[in-house]
Amino acid sequence: MSAERRLRVSYQDLFDTLLAALARTGMEPDRAALCAKLVADATRDGVASHGVNRFPRFMTMIRSGVVDVRARPALVAAHGALERWDGRRGPGNLNAHDSMARAIVLAAEHGVGCVALANTNHWMRGGTYGWQAADAGVIGICWTNTCPNMVPWRSSDARIGNNPLVIAVPRPSGHVVLDMAVSQFSVGAVTMHRLRGEPLPIDGGLDEAGRPTRDPAAIEATKKLLPIGLWKGSGLAVMLDLVGAILAGGLATHQIDSDPERETSLSQVFIACRVDAREAATIADAVIAYLHESTGAVRYPGERTLEARTKNVAEGIPIDERVWDEVRKLR
Amino acid sequence: MSAERRLRVSYQDLFDTLLAALARTGMEPDRAALCAKLVADATRDGVASHGVNRFPRFMTMIRSGVVDVRARPALVAAHGALERWDGRRGPGNLNAHDSMARAIVLAAEHGVGCVALANTNHWMRGGTYGWQAADAGVIGICWTNTCPNMVPWRSSDARIGNNPLVIAVPRPSGHVVLDMAVSQFSVGAVTMHRLRGEPLPIDGGLDEAGRPTRDPAAIEATKKLLPIGLWKGSGLAVMLDLVGAILAGGLATHQIDSDPERETSLSQVFIACRVDAREAATIADAVIAYLHESTGAVRYPGERTLEARTKNVAEGIPIDERVWDEVRKLR
Repeated sequence: MSAERRLRVSYQDLFDTLLAALARTGMEPDRAALCAKLVADATRDGVASHGVNRFPRFMTMIRSGVVDVRARPALVAAHGALERWDGRRGPGNLNAHDSMARAIVLAAEHGVGCVALANTNHWMRGGTYGWQAADAGVIGICWTNTCPNMVPWRSSDARIGNNPLVIAVPRPSGHVVLDMAVSQFSVGAVTMHRLRGEPLPIDGGLDEAGRPTRDPAAIEATKKLLPIGLWKGSGLAVMLDLVGAILAGGLATHQIDSDPERETSLSQVFIACRVDAREAATIADAVIAYLHESTGAVRYPGERTLEARTKNVAEGIPIDERVWDEVRKLR
Repeated sequence: MSAERRLRVSYQDLFDTLLAALARTGMEPDRAALCAKLVADATRDGVASHGVNRFPRFMTMIRSGVVDVRARPALVAAHGALERWDGRRGPGNLNAHDSMARAIVLAAEHGVGCVALANTNHWMRGGTYGWQAADAGVIGICWTNTCPNMVPWRSSDARIGNNPLVIAVPRPSGHVVLDMAVSQFSVGAVTMHRLRGEPLPIDGGLDEAGRPTRDPAAIEATKKLLPIGLWKGSGLAVMLDLVGAILAGGLATHQIDSDPERETSLSQVFIACRVDAREAATIADAVIAYLHESTGAVRYPGERTLEARTKNVAEGIPIDERVWDEVRKLR
């Protein structure tokens, strides 16, 4: 067990440090600024696992040539409200941000817009693109496939991805944003538990012997996550992979390298839908009020994100000391 | 424990019996024929829980005026590829079938089509509309909200719905169709276990004392299902309800009557996406081949449906004797 030591870093310090590191890679200045902002925002929002904690690996993948910092997505085919784009192995968060932005434009024109993206890289925090859609006043739905890191129902082989899914609804008093892998715990959540020296609260994967376990290090070793709802999450993962790969004309999970530093050419889908802002707010407020009246401390999806954002802006952003040392060396 | 006695009934006998019952309700002949076909098809496909087993309740809801057999959905608003329809409390399976048919037409024109449907009734087997989309050569995604029948994470109140979700991919050698409630077990699956006198294989809901239980009768009594993946299925259910109610301008789960015979005015979403048939088949075949090579008997979503269909067409459709007696009295 290794206890985590956490520092509190200001948003500006975090952003500047990330930007300085990116500037050394040859990334164009406007793209580097957006990339640094997306990583800093995720960390500020309490999702360091998919923000600054992933940044050293992102830089490694730039150096090794897996991520091409100068690539921008290219339109491959358009059918009205449905478009297919090639991510050209550019930075995953920039490609995803561009794709949701394009889906939002399509939704303004067609009511609904769908952008399918092939050949992209890890999008870091998926919720980013949900908040992006909700900030633009539309419903956003997006998902990505991953390398094989989860076991299908009835098997102990890692043959499906945990394919994170994001659904976002705009709401003036706080967007409602679900950001979840279809495994019981995301890869980042497993790592965070290991860093904190804590077991998972329930079984999250299989150990070397194929037994369900709460030990995060054992799951990181096997890369065998368990799906939510066992047979149900297993089926959902297969469908998200299939729909993503087919719409994008890209790779499916079984074709994606399981080495985290070579996991690339992912397929993703970004959907945006127009809503009437006032009507949406009325409905969302009523649903959330009903949830909040439950026995127990029920939260709506995205509620803790807003709380973390407020706290971290005021007090500084918590970052693991070892991670921060590593990131500062990248400048 | 009450053991189930099952008969084998021919498709034609089942269809004729359902049609005769519907003809007595004043439903127009073409609508009655489609309605009987959808119920018979679901039963033939091995999903009696959402087919013939629900038919007596459907007839009760027609007699009580909850379901209006002559209502057809009406267009409320159109924004290109996104349309909003009013189901006018018509038969839920006909409304859903019409809505997916309309989404398929929109997808042919715009690449993607999205139909949101308010004021509808229980759609019986959700997978029906996935098979419908796949038969038309498109990807289909649809979901419905329900009455509050599931507990949100951290609460023991039934304040969210188990909102079934369907995702379908066309494939010449067998469509890939996921049809799942976001509870660990659907209401129909719980009932089927009770009819067979069997406990659930894992906890599926809360008992009167708020404890997790495998006893289907206890869960039917409390109407407190557990979500897949606990906090994850809880969040997913909230989002499906919100997006459905907002796009349709319809009711959300908390506004829907929990009495199964008065559960009405549901909100549903139907999405269709164009695909290149040959490319889609190549990708789906490769994903499924990889799954089938796993250790363990891994099935793809929809695989058992095709097996059941083949067997039941050959041997007759298995129907609980008590259900069949009840349905025959409705003619």
